[in-house]
Amino acid sequence: MATLAPLQHGSLGEALARLRETIAPLSATGSPCAVEKALGGLLFQDITARRNVPHYRASAVDGYALKALTTAGASPARPVNLTPERYSWVNTGGIVNACYDAVIMVEDTSLNDEILLVSKPLTVGANVRPPGEDVMKGQVIARRGDPVTPQLQALLRAAGVEEIPLRTLPRTLYLPTGDEIVSPDRADLLIEGTVPETNSTLLRGLFQQWGYPLDVGDILPDDFMKLRRAIESAIDHYDLILVGAGSAKGKRDHTAEVFSSLGEILFRWVRTRPGRPAMAAKIKGKPVVCMPGFPMSSAVIAFAIVYPLLRHLEDRWDEGEGSLFSQATGTLVLEEAELLMSHSSSPGVEEWLRCQVAQIGGRKFVWPIAGGASSMWAMAEADGLVIIPEEKLECPKGMQVLLHRVKKVSLTNRILFQGSNDPALERVGSYLRSRGADMVLRSVGSVAGLAALARQEGHVAACHLIDPQTGRYNDSYIERFQGDATWRRVLLFFRQQGLIVAKGNPKEIRSVDDFARSGVILVNRQPGAGTRVLLDHLLNEHGIAPVSVQGYGKQCLTHLDAASRVAAGLADVALGIRSAAEAMDLDFLPITEEPYELVYPDIHENHPGIVALLSVLSDPQWRAEVEGLGGYRWND
Amino acid sequence: MATLAPLQHGSLGEALARLRETIAPLSATGSPCAVEKALGGLLFQDITARRNVPHYRASAVDGYALKALTTAGASPARPVNLTPERYSWVNTGGIVNACYDAVIMVEDTSLNDEILLVSKPLTVGANVRPPGEDVMKGQVIARRGDPVTPQLQALLRAAGVEEIPLRTLPRTLYLPTGDEIVSPDRADLLIEGTVPETNSTLLRGLFQQWGYPLDVGDILPDDFMKLRRAIESAIDHYDLILVGAGSAKGKRDHTAEVFSSLGEILFRWVRTRPGRPAMAAKIKGKPVVCMPGFPMSSAVIAFAIVYPLLRHLEDRWDEGEGSLFSQATGTLVLEEAELLMSHSSSPGVEEWLRCQVAQIGGRKFVWPIAGGASSMWAMAEADGLVIIPEEKLECPKGMQVLLHRVKKVSLTNRILFQGSNDPALERVGSYLRSRGADMVLRSVGSVAGLAALARQEGHVAACHLIDPQTGRYNDSYIERFQGDATWRRVLLFFRQQGLIVAKGNPKEIRSVDDFARSGVILVNRQPGAGTRVLLDHLLNEHGIAPVSVQGYGKQCLTHLDAASRVAAGLADVALGIRSAAEAMDLDFLPITEEPYELVYPDIHENHPGIVALLSVLSDPQWRAEVEGLGGYRWND
Repeated sequence: MATLAPLQHGSLGEALARLRETIAPLSATGSPCAVEKALGGLLFQDITARRNVPHYRASAVDGYALKALTTAGASPARPVNLTPERYSWVNTGGIVNACYDAVIMVEDTSLNDEILLVSKPLTVGANVRPPGEDVMKGQVIARRGDPVTPQLQALLRAAGVEEIPLRTLPRTLYLPTGDEIVSPDRADLLIEGTVPETNSTLLRGLFQQWGYPLDVGDILPDDFMKLRRAIESAIDHYDLILVGAGSAKGKRDHTAEVFSSLGEILFRWVRTRPGRPAMAAKIKGKPVVCMPGFPMSSAVIAFAIVYPLLRHLEDRWDEGEGSLFSQATGTLVLEEAELLMSHSSSPGVEEWLRCQVAQIGGRKFVWPIAGGASSMWAMAEADGLVIIPEEKLECPKGMQVLLHRVKKVSLTNRILFQGSNDPALERVGSYLRSRGADMVLRSVGSVAGLAALARQEGHVAACHLIDPQTGRYNDSYIERFQGDATWRRVLLFFRQQGLIVAKGNPKEIRSVDDFARSGVILVNRQPGAGTRVLLDHLLNEHGIAPVSVQGYGKQCLTHLDAASRVAAGLADVALGIRSAAEAMDLDFLPITEEPYELVYPDIHENHPGIVALLSVLSDPQWRAEVEGLGGYRWND
Repeated sequence: MATLAPLQHGSLGEALARLRETIAPLSATGSPCAVEKALGGLLFQDITARRNVPHYRASAVDGYALKALTTAGASPARPVNLTPERYSWVNTGGIVNACYDAVIMVEDTSLNDEILLVSKPLTVGANVRPPGEDVMKGQVIARRGDPVTPQLQALLRAAGVEEIPLRTLPRTLYLPTGDEIVSPDRADLLIEGTVPETNSTLLRGLFQQWGYPLDVGDILPDDFMKLRRAIESAIDHYDLILVGAGSAKGKRDHTAEVFSSLGEILFRWVRTRPGRPAMAAKIKGKPVVCMPGFPMSSAVIAFAIVYPLLRHLEDRWDEGEGSLFSQATGTLVLEEAELLMSHSSSPGVEEWLRCQVAQIGGRKFVWPIAGGASSMWAMAEADGLVIIPEEKLECPKGMQVLLHRVKKVSLTNRILFQGSNDPALERVGSYLRSRGADMVLRSVGSVAGLAALARQEGHVAACHLIDPQTGRYNDSYIERFQGDATWRRVLLFFRQQGLIVAKGNPKEIRSVDDFARSGVILVNRQPGAGTRVLLDHLLNEHGIAPVSVQGYGKQCLTHLDAASRVAAGLADVALGIRSAAEAMDLDFLPITEEPYELVYPDIHENHPGIVALLSVLSDPQWRAEVEGLGGYRWND
């Protein structure tokens, strides 16, 4: 067969098809396993019973063994009387001796001294289980391909089967590579510029969930010959090799050269996001897949290529409940939901969104969690995946999408928070959990939070919005947004707002006036954030034009994000709360103290999530945690 | 609180409610676990990141690190030129040194000798991931109650977390009891009257599927003090004790006495079938459940009482997808189907039927597998469970029921065989499997099989029916049943019918004439079985009235069942096929050779199951197996 040119920039489906066309399923083999350890395995051969079950004439009831002939003509009115040598007590499961051929239930008899009164005639064999009644020696009791269930395990042991041949699973090796990669066990090697190797942790977990074994090799440096030798020496011992090859362009080229030198590249680049730099080759007839380095990219290729490939190698492509995608991702439920926010997808690529879900009234909403392919947080935090097909570019707010939900979520007990960001709220989660509820947080800013409440797209919001006209907080904004509805307000705490600057304040920033100084770089917050409203108000008061502030255009979504840019030397100053400065060990110059209010429509006041949230707010343990963050003063 | 009288003969729901009212959930505790081994566990506490991810200023792209200020005004038309000391190559994930504050993508640059031409202006921080961009040191990255997923494992390791506290699971001990029970590992103890202890195998498997630990104690004899001491010494170390207490009445009383002597009986007898003899007590505040001895009875109590009780002890009653019943039984799918046969349920008990399922045209059928509570075969072979509620008594054929299907079944590739019984067909299973198909067998007899085909309630039938008028086989029956449809016939083989008698033929049975002899006991087959038709024909020919044949009324559904009763001494003779006699090592006196024909409607001729079946019939390996059974002659 002529070798095809490598598929370049194909879809995931095309890439997988190329693998299936090119790589043959493995010939099935089996290996012996003790019955007790075989749960979940697949039988490699038919199993026959080694003995009869039951293996002797057993009574099916509690009663008296006797000869059926001796009961002829018995009736309740005219019972037959049997002397002791003509009957014998037997428990359920007990032996019916050869001198008897039936058992009468104790309920159909009475004893008068030692005479048994039998009130019912029996036929030969009544209530006697002959040997092999359940299964007979030599009978096929399980067939090749059957999964081993607890019920089958019990039957096998009853039938005298100790060991069974299980279908051997494909053997996979994962080879992490990269000069910058170090084992997460070696904290001493984790310096600036090195990255802990955690993709093997992800893959080990996925393989464990899928029920396949995975070996992980030592970390290889970016060295052509070392990678080549590692693949060459492993290829005979494995059915599939995965190479974790980093995302830098140079490394990918290097891996491609190794693959080409050993075999035939099947596909390179895939029209998916993340996951684009995936590649696969056929080396000595076996599949070798290059996994992109970013965690989510690696997960996408694991779900969309590796799992289906394992099923193909086993020749079990069509088996199983649900799609291969659902099996691979561990999808619990498929549910339609509407996008909470518009999403611009890239042209010509299928996009995998890690989403959260919430339900408000009868509407179910999903939204992608912020974070690129590198974000392990977004991957771990997602409730499920939404796939945007490549023909879709603009996904408007409200568009119906299909969520592959992988986590158990109680939609009736979960509330959606949209509003102002505060680290104190991020600490609420486990307190809600212990009250049977759950909250998902979207830090969209004070104004956007109130607007979401008004659109009935959130259960609860929070705001700290100064009215530049009056200097009063929140009132005018809330009145404007609530319209005819009734909203409840809870003044949660006062918090200190001020200037977050590097430790020791090297740029000697003293007030907002310094923002206009040359060489001072600000990191800003998004429009509609309470802190942004305050900043614009302060700039206005100080007569500073935004265009004269370097970094005014750089926006962060949370206080901690802004502070982290100061800590990293990417900005000199941010307006933000004290707790963010303290968390990052930065200096803080207080400017004002502002009220931070929770707001929720009264229609949600009996929602289990709102009830739980209100209870948490007065929980002394949570309050102590918040006080530890710094810069908070309670209202009461 | 006053002690309630034990609930007697309550429903499963009432029994469970009594447990929940009386036994408090456990206070949650945690124990440390290495992240790598924690998959599937539940976090006992919130987990915070031990380090920033990333932990240094990392480039988000492949490109050149530089100062953003140096790119001011750059455009493709007027690129900015940078000398080598003003930029530095950086890979994705590489360090952005403190002397730089942005990274330009390689695509937005070109190199001219050593001069970097930059065609795009950058802002400070562009393409730089600040430390903690993904997660920040001290941030809550997983909350109490979160399940440990592969994605979370990877995040935890990236964030420097090595060990996490997992919620401790309830500890359960199973105590098998009974003088007749022996370990299945001790074949030497397995004599007549002893039974291998396999309920612990079943329970171990179920607990493994559920994700709970289970310890199994040594087998205890039926001894009041020994059982009492075993419970007393275990009760402080376990959260739940299960006592496997046999099904004989005496034993149950004995277990009840032990329970009463140590604590308070909560319920006794449950209105379910099987499972009726279940019982539970509260001993030192802990639940102790008596599991009935029959395997299916034990399974019912495990599904309906033990699993929900474990969830209650964990205080996780309401969590999870699907009902507790579905979780306990491992239900993959709930499907409506019609009963293939009428079923009489017992009054006042909920009945658990172990069912198989098949689909013919658009109709989905289920039927219970024969076998009582003692049948491990029926338990292992079932595709799922149908629960008949206690108010239902007569369940007519065609009634819609709900199948909790626990096995993966390809309904499109499965065929339903209804017809004459032959061991050769029982050997077809794995050959069909290897061809991607599947067949379920119902040995209903030749006439009932043809009638089922006529009602479109089977894909294929088999018959060997002599026409007493003509002495010809099958033709007249098939013509009568097929009506206007077109049925295909496949003459599979000829097989020997004759008299099956005990080894050595102690009763000296020579012909059908001996059936009328006093002291000779027959075991018969059901009306409509081809063998029964033949028997009645032979009796008629020999001038013997059925009433004069002892055992004429005792019916078996298969040749092997009939033969096993001869082997067990419960009958002296059966009419049946040679292979059944040989399987049971009995003597066989041939009477005739009969054609055994498969019949299927032509509408099914392209059904994958029929196609596979026809292919198996000429498979030399299957044919060799059949020849080994004895008494078969091929048509070709």
